[in-house]
Amino acid sequence: MTPLPMRAAERAQLAMMLEVCAFPKPGNVDRCHDYADTRLEHFLASTIFSRPALEEAERGEGRIGEIIKHAVQLMSIHGGGNTHFGAFILLIPLVYGGDIAGARRAIEKTDVSDAVAFYKAFGMTRVRMHASDDLDVNDPATLAKLRDRDITLLDVMQHSAANDMVAREWVTGFPLTRRGADLLRQSGPGRESIVQMFLALLATEPDTFIVKKHGRDVALETMRKAQEVLNGARPVETLDEECIALDINPGSIADITIAAIFVALGEGWEWDS
Amino acid sequence: MTPLPMRAAERAQLAMMLEVCAFPKPGNVDRCHDYADTRLEHFLASTIFSRPALEEAERGEGRIGEIIKHAVQLMSIHGGGNTHFGAFILLIPLVYGGDIAGARRAIEKTDVSDAVAFYKAFGMTRVRMHASDDLDVNDPATLAKLRDRDITLLDVMQHSAANDMVAREWVTGFPLTRRGADLLRQSGPGRESIVQMFLALLATEPDTFIVKKHGRDVALETMRKAQEVLNGARPVETLDEECIALDINPGSIADITIAAIFVALGEGWEWDS
Repeated sequence: MTPLPMRAAERAQLAMMLEVCAFPKPGNVDRCHDYADTRLEHFLASTIFSRPALEEAERGEGRIGEIIKHAVQLMSIHGGGNTHFGAFILLIPLVYGGDIAGARRAIEKTDVSDAVAFYKAFGMTRVRMHASDDLDVNDPATLAKLRDRDITLLDVMQHSAANDMVAREWVTGFPLTRRGADLLRQSGPGRESIVQMFLALLATEPDTFIVKKHGRDVALETMRKAQEVLNGARPVETLDEECIALDINPGSIADITIAAIFVALGEGWEWDS
Repeated sequence: MTPLPMRAAERAQLAMMLEVCAFPKPGNVDRCHDYADTRLEHFLASTIFSRPALEEAERGEGRIGEIIKHAVQLMSIHGGGNTHFGAFILLIPLVYGGDIAGARRAIEKTDVSDAVAFYKAFGMTRVRMHASDDLDVNDPATLAKLRDRDITLLDVMQHSAANDMVAREWVTGFPLTRRGADLLRQSGPGRESIVQMFLALLATEPDTFIVKKHGRDVALETMRKAQEVLNGARPVETLDEECIALDINPGSIADITIAAIFVALGEGWEWDS
Protein backbone atom coordinates (compact mmCIF):
# COMPACT_ATOMS: atom_id res chain seq x y z
CA MET A 1 0.00 0.00 0.00
CA THR A 2 1.15 3.52 -0.72
CA PRO A 3 1.35 5.60 2.44
CA LEU A 4 -1.40 8.17 2.77
CA PRO A 5 -0.47 11.86 2.94
CA MET A 6 0.26 12.98 6.49
CA ARG A 7 -1.62 15.85 8.09
CA ALA A 8 0.35 18.46 10.05
CA ALA A 9 -1.38 17.52 13.31
CA GLU A 10 -0.47 13.86 12.75
CA ARG A 11 3.08 14.83 11.86
CA ALA A 12 3.32 16.63 15.22
CA GLN A 13 2.01 13.55 17.04
CA LEU A 14 4.45 11.34 15.16
CA ALA A 15 7.31 13.68 16.20
CA MET A 16 6.24 13.50 19.85
CA MET A 17 6.03 9.70 19.71
CA LEU A 18 9.38 9.24 17.95
CA GLU A 19 11.15 11.56 20.37
CA VAL A 20 10.03 9.81 23.53
CA CYS A 21 10.72 6.32 22.13
CA ALA A 22 14.25 7.19 20.94
CA PHE A 23 16.94 5.79 23.24
CA PRO A 24 19.22 6.25 24.96
CA LYS A 25 18.54 9.94 25.51
CA PRO A 26 20.71 10.82 28.52
CA GLY A 27 18.61 11.79 31.53
CA ASN A 28 15.22 11.83 29.84
CA VAL A 29 12.27 9.47 29.76
CA ASP A 30 12.79 7.10 26.87
CA ARG A 31 11.94 3.58 25.85
CA CYS A 32 14.28 2.19 28.51
CA HIS A 33 13.81 4.70 31.32
CA ASP A 34 10.94 6.14 33.37
CA TYR A 35 11.01 8.62 36.20
CA ALA A 36 9.00 7.50 39.22
CA ASP A 37 6.21 9.98 38.60
CA THR A 38 6.56 10.53 34.85
CA ARG A 39 6.61 7.47 32.64
CA LEU A 40 6.71 6.57 28.98
CA GLU A 41 2.95 6.02 29.00
CA HIS A 42 2.35 9.58 30.24
CA PHE A 43 4.25 11.02 27.27
CA LEU A 44 2.38 8.75 24.86
CA ALA A 45 -1.01 9.54 26.40
CA SER A 46 -0.29 13.26 26.00
CA THR A 47 0.73 12.56 22.39
CA ILE A 48 -2.60 10.86 21.67
CA PHE A 49 -4.86 13.25 23.58
CA SER A 50 -3.33 16.51 22.29
CA ARG A 51 -4.80 15.88 18.85
CA PRO A 52 -7.82 18.23 19.07
CA ALA A 53 -5.53 21.18 19.91
CA LEU A 54 -3.09 20.24 17.15
CA GLU A 55 -6.00 20.02 14.71
CA GLU A 56 -7.12 23.53 15.71
CA ALA A 57 -3.61 24.72 14.91
CA GLU A 58 -3.67 22.87 11.59
CA ARG A 59 -6.97 24.49 10.62
CA GLY A 60 -5.66 27.89 11.71
CA GLU A 61 -8.72 28.26 13.90
CA GLY A 62 -8.46 30.56 16.86
CA ARG A 63 -5.37 32.10 18.34
CA ILE A 64 -1.98 30.58 19.19
CA GLY A 65 -2.23 31.37 22.90
CA GLU A 66 -5.64 29.74 23.28
CA ILE A 67 -4.50 26.67 21.34
CA ILE A 68 -1.44 26.26 23.58
CA LYS A 69 -3.75 26.56 26.58
CA HIS A 70 -6.05 23.91 25.10
CA ALA A 71 -3.13 21.55 24.53
CA VAL A 72 -2.00 22.01 28.14
CA GLN A 73 -5.55 21.26 29.32
CA LEU A 74 -5.61 18.06 27.28
CA MET A 75 -2.32 17.03 28.93
CA SER A 76 -4.28 16.63 32.17
CA ILE A 77 -5.51 13.26 30.87
CA HIS A 78 -2.55 11.84 32.75
CA GLY A 79 -1.15 12.38 36.22
CA GLY A 80 2.47 12.50 35.07
CA GLY A 81 2.86 16.28 35.33
CA ASN A 82 4.33 18.40 32.58
CA THR A 83 5.26 16.18 29.68
CA HIS A 84 4.91 18.51 26.69
CA PHE A 85 4.37 22.14 27.67
CA GLY A 86 7.62 23.30 26.05
CA ALA A 87 6.97 21.08 23.03
CA PHE A 88 3.52 22.63 22.54
CA ILE A 89 5.01 26.15 22.68
CA LEU A 90 7.08 25.18 19.64
CA LEU A 91 4.72 22.78 17.87
CA ILE A 92 1.54 24.87 17.93
CA PRO A 93 2.98 27.73 15.83
CA LEU A 94 4.81 25.23 13.61
CA VAL A 95 1.62 23.28 12.92
CA TYR A 96 -0.30 26.55 12.53
CA GLY A 97 2.18 27.89 10.00
CA GLY A 98 3.16 24.55 8.44
CA ASP A 99 6.90 25.21 8.67
CA ILE A 100 9.40 27.55 10.34
CA ALA A 101 8.65 30.48 8.03
CA GLY A 102 4.92 30.06 8.66
CA ALA A 103 5.51 29.76 12.40
CA ARG A 104 7.44 33.04 12.40
CA ARG A 105 4.57 34.79 10.64
CA ALA A 106 2.09 33.34 13.13
CA ILE A 107 4.23 34.46 16.07
CA GLU A 108 4.46 38.01 14.74
CA LYS A 109 0.66 38.20 14.89
CA THR A 110 0.31 37.26 18.58
CA ASP A 111 -1.24 39.93 20.77
CA VAL A 112 -2.13 40.51 24.40
CA SER A 113 -4.96 37.95 24.26
CA ASP A 114 -2.39 35.28 23.39
CA ALA A 115 -0.25 36.39 26.32
CA VAL A 116 -3.20 36.21 28.71
CA ALA A 117 -4.17 32.70 27.50
CA PHE A 118 -0.56 31.58 27.77
CA TYR A 119 -0.30 32.79 31.37
CA LYS A 120 -3.50 30.94 32.18
CA ALA A 121 -2.01 27.80 30.64
CA PHE A 122 1.08 28.33 32.73
CA GLY A 123 -1.00 28.55 35.87
CA MET A 124 -2.26 25.03 35.20
CA THR A 125 1.24 23.56 35.29
CA ARG A 126 4.04 23.39 37.80
CA VAL A 127 6.57 24.55 35.25
CA ARG A 128 9.33 26.92 36.27
CA MET A 129 9.74 30.06 34.22
CA HIS A 130 12.16 32.91 34.57
CA ALA A 131 10.04 35.68 33.17
CA SER A 132 10.76 39.08 34.60
CA ASP A 133 9.64 39.03 38.20
CA ASP A 134 7.03 41.65 37.71
CA LEU A 135 5.22 39.33 35.31
CA ASP A 136 5.19 36.47 37.80
CA VAL A 137 3.00 33.59 36.64
CA ASN A 138 1.85 32.97 40.20
CA ASP A 139 0.75 36.55 40.82
CA PRO A 140 -2.97 37.05 40.08
CA ALA A 141 -2.22 40.71 39.25
CA THR A 142 -0.09 39.66 36.28
CA LEU A 143 -3.02 39.24 33.88
CA ALA A 144 -4.09 42.83 34.56
CA LYS A 145 -0.52 44.02 34.00
CA LEU A 146 -0.37 42.20 30.66
CA ARG A 147 -3.58 43.91 29.56
CA ASP A 148 -2.63 47.35 30.89
CA ARG A 149 0.71 47.31 29.08
CA ASP A 150 -0.68 45.55 25.95
CA ILE A 151 2.05 42.89 26.14
CA THR A 152 1.96 40.32 23.31
CA LEU A 153 2.94 36.68 23.64
CA LEU A 154 6.05 37.42 21.58
CA ASP A 155 6.91 40.14 24.14
CA VAL A 156 6.54 37.55 26.92
CA MET A 157 8.94 35.27 25.09
CA GLN A 158 11.39 38.15 24.71
CA HIS A 159 11.25 38.68 28.48
CA SER A 160 12.04 34.99 28.96
CA ALA A 161 14.53 34.36 26.15
CA ALA A 162 17.68 34.95 28.14
CA ASN A 163 16.80 32.15 30.56
CA ASP A 164 14.66 29.83 28.46
CA MET A 165 15.85 28.27 25.22
CA VAL A 166 12.31 27.40 24.12
CA ALA A 167 11.27 31.06 24.39
CA ARG A 168 14.53 31.91 22.58
CA GLU A 169 13.44 29.78 19.62
CA TRP A 170 10.36 32.00 19.25
CA VAL A 171 12.35 35.22 19.43
CA THR A 172 15.24 34.22 17.19
CA GLY A 173 13.40 32.32 14.45
CA PHE A 174 13.82 28.69 15.55
CA PRO A 175 17.60 28.33 14.92
CA LEU A 176 18.08 25.19 17.04
CA THR A 177 14.95 23.63 15.57
CA ARG A 178 16.37 24.35 12.11
CA ARG A 179 19.71 22.90 13.10
CA GLY A 180 18.12 19.77 14.53
CA ALA A 181 16.12 19.19 11.34
CA ASP A 182 19.26 19.62 9.24
CA LEU A 183 21.14 17.17 11.46
CA LEU A 184 18.39 14.58 11.08
CA ARG A 185 18.51 14.79 7.31
CA GLN A 186 22.32 14.59 7.36
CA SER A 187 22.25 11.56 9.68
CA GLY A 188 19.89 9.75 7.35
CA PRO A 189 16.63 7.89 7.84
CA GLY A 190 15.61 5.93 10.92
CA ARG A 191 15.29 6.31 14.65
CA GLU A 192 19.04 6.15 15.40
CA SER A 193 19.39 9.61 13.84
CA ILE A 194 17.11 11.07 16.51
CA VAL A 195 19.54 10.10 19.27
CA GLN A 196 22.46 11.57 17.30
CA MET A 197 20.56 14.82 16.78
CA PHE A 198 19.54 15.01 20.44
CA LEU A 199 23.17 14.56 21.53
CA ALA A 200 24.38 17.17 19.04
CA LEU A 201 21.87 19.74 20.35
CA LEU A 202 22.78 18.84 23.93
CA ALA A 203 26.44 19.51 23.06
CA THR A 204 25.59 22.89 21.50
CA GLU A 205 24.02 24.97 24.25
CA PRO A 206 23.39 24.50 27.97
CA ASP A 207 19.86 23.19 28.50
CA THR A 208 17.91 25.91 30.30
CA PHE A 209 15.65 23.37 32.00
CA ILE A 210 18.77 21.98 33.70
CA VAL A 211 19.88 25.53 34.53
CA LYS A 212 16.58 26.25 36.29
CA LYS A 213 16.76 23.04 38.31
CA HIS A 214 20.48 22.64 39.04
CA GLY A 215 22.20 25.88 38.02
CA ARG A 216 24.33 26.91 35.10
CA ASP A 217 27.44 24.95 36.05
CA VAL A 218 25.60 21.64 35.93
CA ALA A 219 24.09 22.52 32.55
CA LEU A 220 27.51 23.45 31.15
CA GLU A 221 29.03 20.27 32.53
CA THR A 222 26.28 18.21 30.88
CA MET A 223 26.94 20.03 27.61
CA ARG A 224 30.64 19.21 27.82
CA LYS A 225 29.90 15.56 28.56
CA ALA A 226 27.60 15.40 25.52
CA GLN A 227 30.53 16.73 23.45
CA GLU A 228 32.65 13.90 24.83
CA VAL A 229 30.01 11.38 23.81
CA LEU A 230 30.03 12.81 20.29
CA ASN A 231 33.84 12.65 20.24
CA GLY A 232 33.78 9.02 21.34
CA ALA A 233 35.45 9.83 24.66
CA ARG A 234 32.43 8.84 26.79
CA PRO A 235 29.85 6.09 26.20
CA VAL A 236 26.33 7.46 25.84
CA GLU A 237 25.17 4.90 28.40
CA THR A 238 27.55 6.37 30.99
CA LEU A 239 26.20 9.87 30.45
CA ASP A 240 22.67 8.48 30.71
CA GLU A 241 23.45 6.79 34.04
CA GLU A 242 25.14 9.92 35.42
CA CYS A 243 22.21 12.13 34.46
CA ILE A 244 19.66 9.74 35.97
CA ALA A 245 21.65 9.41 39.20
CA LEU A 246 21.71 13.19 39.62
CA ASP A 247 18.14 13.81 38.38
CA ILE A 248 19.47 15.86 35.47
CA ASN A 249 17.01 15.82 32.58
CA PRO A 250 17.54 17.97 29.51
CA GLY A 251 13.86 18.73 29.04
CA SER A 252 14.22 21.82 26.84
CA ILE A 253 16.51 20.04 24.37
CA ALA A 254 13.84 17.31 24.23
CA ASP A 255 11.21 19.95 23.36
CA ILE A 256 13.40 21.31 20.57
CA THR A 257 14.10 17.76 19.39
CA ILE A 258 10.36 17.24 18.89
CA ALA A 259 10.08 20.49 16.91
CA ALA A 260 13.07 19.48 14.79
CA ILE A 261 11.57 16.06 14.00
CA PHE A 262 8.33 17.78 12.97
CA VAL A 263 10.21 20.09 10.57
CA ALA A 264 12.39 17.29 9.17
CA LEU A 265 9.37 15.04 8.52
CA GLY A 266 7.81 17.91 6.58
CA GLU A 267 10.97 18.14 4.49
CA GLY A 268 10.97 14.45 3.59
CA TRP A 269 13.07 12.90 6.32
CA GLU A 270 12.04 9.24 6.66
CA TRP A 271 11.44 7.91 10.16
CA ASP A 272 10.49 4.37 9.14
CA SER A 273 13.51 2.52 7.85
CA MET B 1 -6.44 19.67 36.98
CA THR B 2 -9.42 17.34 36.76
CA PRO B 3 -9.04 14.88 33.90
CA LEU B 4 -11.30 15.62 30.96
CA PRO B 5 -13.87 13.02 29.91
CA MET B 6 -12.45 10.47 27.50
CA ARG B 7 -14.01 9.88 24.10
CA ALA B 8 -14.49 6.29 22.93
CA ALA B 9 -12.03 6.77 20.03
CA GLU B 10 -9.40 8.08 22.45
CA ARG B 11 -10.11 5.23 24.84
CA ALA B 12 -9.39 2.80 22.00
CA GLN B 13 -6.12 4.58 21.21
CA LEU B 14 -5.16 4.54 24.88
CA ALA B 15 -5.86 0.78 24.99
CA MET B 16 -3.65 0.20 21.93
CA MET B 17 -0.84 2.27 23.44
CA LEU B 18 -1.01 0.64 26.87
CA GLU B 19 -1.03 -2.86 25.38
CA VAL B 20 2.08 -2.42 23.26
CA CYS B 21 4.03 -0.67 26.04
CA ALA B 22 3.22 -3.32 28.67
CA PHE B 23 6.15 -5.66 29.33
CA PRO B 24 7.25 -8.35 29.37
CA LYS B 25 4.60 -9.85 27.10
CA PRO B 26 6.13 -13.17 26.04
CA GLY B 27 6.88 -13.25 22.32
CA ASN B 28 5.26 -9.97 21.36
CA VAL B 29 6.55 -6.50 20.55
CA ASP B 30 6.69 -4.57 23.79
CA ARG B 31 8.63 -1.78 25.40
CA CYS B 32 11.73 -3.99 25.59
CA HIS B 33 11.43 -5.99 22.39
CA ASP B 34 11.10 -5.32 18.66
CA TYR B 35 10.93 -7.73 15.77
CA ALA B 36 13.32 -6.86 12.95
CA ASP B 37 10.55 -5.67 10.65
CA THR B 38 7.90 -4.70 13.18
CA ARG B 39 8.91 -2.35 15.94
CA LEU B 40 7.37 -0.48 18.85
CA GLU B 41 7.18 2.68 16.74
CA HIS B 42 5.10 0.89 14.09
CA PHE B 43 2.49 -0.06 16.68
CA LEU B 44 2.44 3.46 18.09
CA ALA B 45 2.21 5.06 14.64
CA SER B 46 -0.78 2.86 13.84
CA THR B 47 -2.29 3.86 17.19
CA ILE B 48 -1.97 7.56 16.33
CA PHE B 49 -3.01 7.36 12.67
CA SER B 50 -6.07 5.10 13.16
CA ARG B 51 -7.93 7.94 14.85
CA PRO B 52 -10.13 9.02 11.90
CA ALA B 53 -11.50 5.48 11.54
CA LEU B 54 -12.06 5.18 15.29
CA GLU B 55 -13.88 8.53 15.24
CA GLU B 56 -16.15 7.26 12.45
CA ALA B 57 -16.98 4.30 14.67
CA GLU B 58 -17.59 6.61 17.63
CA ARG B 59 -20.00 8.74 15.60
CA GLY B 60 -21.73 5.63 14.28
CA GLU B 61 -21.17 6.92 10.75
CA GLY B 62 -21.10 4.37 7.99
CA ARG B 63 -20.88 0.63 8.28
CA ILE B 64 -18.62 -1.57 10.41
CA GLY B 65 -16.99 -3.28 7.40
CA GLU B 66 -16.07 0.00 5.72
CA ILE B 67 -14.69 1.41 8.98
CA ILE B 68 -12.50 -1.66 9.51
CA LYS B 69 -11.27 -1.24 5.93
CA HIS B 70 -10.52 2.42 6.60
CA ALA B 71 -8.56 1.57 9.74
CA VAL B 72 -6.51 -0.99 7.80
CA GLN B 73 -5.80 1.63 5.12
CA LEU B 74 -4.59 4.08 7.78
CA MET B 75 -2.24 1.37 9.09
CA SER B 76 -0.25 1.77 5.86
CA ILE B 77 1.34 4.90 7.36
CA HIS B 78 4.08 2.55 8.47
CA GLY B 79 6.02 -0.20 6.76
CA GLY B 80 5.84 -2.58 9.71
CA GLY B 81 3.14 -4.83 8.24
CA ASN B 82 0.07 -5.90 10.15
CA THR B 83 0.15 -4.35 13.60
CA HIS B 84 -3.55 -4.02 14.46
CA PHE B 85 -5.84 -5.79 11.98
CA GLY B 86 -7.19 -8.19 14.61
CA ALA B 87 -7.43 -5.39 17.15
CA PHE B 88 -9.50 -3.28 14.74
CA ILE B 89 -11.89 -6.21 14.13
CA LEU B 90 -12.66 -6.10 17.86
CA LEU B 91 -12.28 -2.38 18.58
CA ILE B 92 -14.39 -0.98 15.74
CA PRO B 93 -17.65 -2.62 16.88
CA LEU B 94 -16.77 -1.92 20.53
CA VAL B 95 -16.23 1.78 19.82
CA TYR B 96 -19.30 1.81 17.56
CA GLY B 97 -21.48 0.28 20.27
CA GLY B 98 -19.68 1.81 23.28
CA ASP B 99 -19.44 -1.50 25.17
CA ILE B 100 -19.81 -5.25 24.62
CA ALA B 101 -23.61 -5.16 24.54
CA GLY B 102 -23.52 -2.35 21.98
CA ALA B 103 -20.89 -4.18 19.93
CA ARG B 104 -23.11 -7.28 19.79
CA ARG B 105 -26.02 -5.21 18.52
CA ALA B 106 -23.77 -3.58 15.88
CA ILE B 107 -22.48 -6.98 14.75
CA GLU B 108 -26.02 -8.36 14.36
CA LYS B 109 -26.68 -5.59 11.85
CA THR B 110 -23.77 -6.36 9.52
CA ASP B 111 -24.75 -7.35 6.00
CA VAL B 112 -23.12 -8.42 2.74
CA SER B 113 -21.70 -4.94 2.15
CA ASP B 114 -19.72 -5.26 5.40
CA ALA B 115 -18.44 -8.65 4.29
CA VAL B 116 -17.31 -7.24 0.93
CA ALA B 117 -15.51 -4.30 2.57
CA PHE B 118 -13.88 -6.65 5.05
CA TYR B 119 -12.58 -8.91 2.28
CA LYS B 120 -11.18 -5.86 0.51
CA ALA B 121 -9.43 -4.85 3.75
CA PHE B 122 -8.07 -8.35 4.02
CA GLY B 123 -6.67 -8.12 0.52
CA MET B 124 -4.56 -5.15 1.62
CA THR B 125 -2.79 -7.17 4.30
CA ARG B 126 -0.67 -10.27 4.39
CA VAL B 127 -2.70 -11.75 7.22
CA ARG B 128 -3.45 -15.47 7.24
CA MET B 129 -7.06 -16.49 7.58
CA HIS B 130 -8.65 -19.88 7.68
CA ALA B 131 -12.01 -19.06 6.20
CA SER B 132 -13.63 -21.86 4.28
CA ASP B 133 -11.56 -22.43 1.17
CA ASP B 134 -14.32 -21.50 -1.17
CA LEU B 135 -14.31 -17.98 0.31
CA ASP B 136 -10.57 -17.56 -0.27
CA VAL B 137 -9.43 -14.00 0.38
CA ASN B 138 -6.97 -14.22 -2.50
CA ASP B 139 -9.54 -15.38 -5.05
CA PRO B 140 -11.02 -12.44 -7.03
CA ALA B 141 -14.21 -14.48 -7.49
CA THR B 142 -14.85 -14.41 -3.74
CA LEU B 143 -16.49 -10.97 -3.72
CA ALA B 144 -19.02 -12.17 -6.29
CA LYS B 145 -19.70 -15.27 -4.20
CA LEU B 146 -20.30 -13.15 -1.10
CA ARG B 147 -22.82 -11.05 -3.01
CA ASP B 148 -24.52 -14.01 -4.70
CA ARG B 149 -25.05 -15.84 -1.43
CA ASP B 150 -25.82 -12.63 0.55
CA ILE B 151 -23.20 -13.52 3.17
CA THR B 152 -22.95 -11.04 6.10
CA LEU B 153 -19.76 -10.16 7.94
CA LEU B 154 -21.08 -12.08 10.95
CA ASP B 155 -21.47 -15.11 8.64
CA VAL B 156 -17.85 -14.69 7.58
CA MET B 157 -16.79 -14.68 11.22
CA GLN B 158 -18.85 -17.81 11.82
CA HIS B 159 -16.98 -19.50 8.98
CA SER B 160 -13.70 -18.50 10.63
CA ALA B 161 -14.52 -18.95 14.30
CA ALA B 162 -13.24 -22.50 14.65
CA ASN B 163 -9.75 -21.45 13.60
CA ASP B 164 -9.59 -17.80 14.66
CA MET B 165 -10.18 -16.64 18.22
CA VAL B 166 -10.74 -13.04 17.15
CA ALA B 167 -13.59 -14.13 14.84
CA ARG B 168 -14.81 -16.31 17.71
CA GLU B 169 -15.17 -13.24 19.92
CA TRP B 170 -17.63 -11.81 17.37
CA VAL B 171 -19.65 -14.98 17.17
CA THR B 172 -19.78 -15.81 20.87
CA GLY B 173 -20.30 -12.33 22.35
CA PHE B 174 -16.75 -11.34 23.35
CA PRO B 175 -16.24 -13.81 26.23
CA LEU B 176 -12.43 -13.52 26.38
CA THR B 177 -12.65 -9.74 26.08
CA ARG B 178 -15.10 -9.78 29.00
CA ARG B 179 -12.82 -12.06 30.97
CA GLY B 180 -9.77 -9.86 30.29
CA ALA B 181 -11.61 -6.75 31.44
CA ASP B 182 -12.71 -8.52 34.63
CA LEU B 183 -9.14 -9.68 35.27
CA LEU B 184 -7.84 -6.13 34.89
CA ARG B 185 -10.29 -4.80 37.43
CA GLN B 186 -9.47 -7.66 39.82
CA SER B 187 -5.73 -7.07 39.44
CA GLY B 188 -6.15 -3.40 40.29
CA PRO B 189 -4.96 -0.19 38.70
CA GLY B 190 -1.73 0.29 36.79
CA ARG B 191 0.21 -1.16 33.92
CA GLU B 192 1.43 -4.28 35.77
CA SER B 193 -2.15 -5.59 35.66
CA ILE B 194 -2.01 -5.64 31.85
CA VAL B 195 0.83 -8.18 31.86
CA GLN B 196 -1.02 -10.33 34.40
CA MET B 197 -4.16 -10.25 32.28
CA PHE B 198 -2.24 -11.04 29.09
CA LEU B 199 -0.63 -14.07 30.77
CA ALA B 200 -3.97 -15.25 32.14
CA LEU B 201 -5.58 -15.11 28.68
CA LEU B 202 -2.53 -16.84 27.17
CA ALA B 203 -2.98 -19.62 29.75
CA THR B 204 -6.68 -19.99 28.92
CA GLU B 205 -6.86 -20.92 25.24
CA PRO B 206 -4.32 -21.71 22.52
CA ASP B 207 -3.56 -18.57 20.52
CA THR B 208 -4.90 -19.13 17.00
CA PHE B 209 -2.27 -16.85 15.49
CA ILE B 210 0.37 -19.26 16.84
CA VAL B 211 -1.68 -22.21 15.52
CA LYS B 212 -1.70 -20.72 11.99
CA LYS B 213 2.05 -20.12 12.05
CA HIS B 214 3.42 -23.08 14.01
CA GLY B 215 0.59 -25.58 14.43
CA ARG B 216 -1.68 -26.53 17.29
CA ASP B 217 0.95 -28.36 19.36
CA VAL B 218 3.13 -25.28 19.66
CA ALA B 219 0.13 -23.16 20.65
CA LEU B 220 -0.90 -25.67 23.33
CA GLU B 221 2.67 -25.86 24.62
CA THR B 222 2.80 -22.05 24.88
CA MET B 223 -0.50 -22.12 26.76
CA ARG B 224 0.86 -24.66 29.23
CA LYS B 225 4.02 -22.60 29.75
CA ALA B 226 1.90 -19.53 30.46
CA GLN B 227 0.08 -21.58 33.12
CA GLU B 228 3.47 -22.40 34.64
CA VAL B 229 4.36 -18.70 34.73
CA LEU B 230 1.10 -17.98 36.55
CA ASN B 231 1.82 -20.83 38.99
CA GLY B 232 5.29 -19.46 39.70
CA ALA B 233 6.98 -22.49 38.13
CA ARG B 234 8.55 -20.55 35.23
CA PRO B 235 9.88 -16.97 35.14
CA VAL B 236 8.02 -14.77 32.67
CA GLU B 237 11.38 -13.67 31.26
CA THR B 238 12.22 -17.28 30.38
CA LEU B 239 8.97 -17.73 28.49
CA ASP B 240 9.61 -14.42 26.71
CA GLU B 241 13.08 -15.57 25.62
CA GLU B 242 11.79 -18.96 24.47
CA CYS B 243 9.01 -17.39 22.41
CA ILE B 244 11.36 -14.87 20.79
CA ALA B 245 13.93 -17.55 19.95
CA LEU B 246 11.28 -19.63 18.18
CA ASP B 247 9.45 -16.68 16.58
CA ILE B 248 6.29 -17.54 18.54
CA ASN B 249 4.16 -14.44 19.00
CA PRO B 250 0.69 -14.64 20.54
CA GLY B 251 -0.80 -11.98 18.29
CA SER B 252 -4.46 -12.88 18.74
CA ILE B 253 -4.22 -12.77 22.53
CA ALA B 254 -2.64 -9.32 22.09
CA ASP B 255 -5.66 -8.23 20.01
CA ILE B 256 -8.07 -9.45 22.68
CA THR B 257 -5.91 -7.77 25.36
CA ILE B 258 -6.45 -4.43 23.60
CA ALA B 259 -10.21 -4.99 23.45
CA ALA B 260 -10.24 -5.95 27.13
CA ILE B 261 -8.32 -2.79 28.13
CA PHE B 262 -10.83 -0.72 26.14
CA VAL B 263 -13.76 -2.31 27.98
CA ALA B 264 -12.10 -2.07 31.40
CA LEU B 265 -11.26 1.63 30.89
CA GLY B 266 -14.93 2.23 30.08
CA GLU B 267 -15.87 0.53 33.34
CA GLY B 268 -13.57 2.69 35.44
CA TRP B 269 -10.34 0.72 35.53
CA GLU B 270 -7.49 3.18 36.15
CA TRP B 271 -4.42 2.85 33.95
CA ASP B 272 -2.47 5.73 35.51
CA SER B 273 -1.35 4.87 38.99
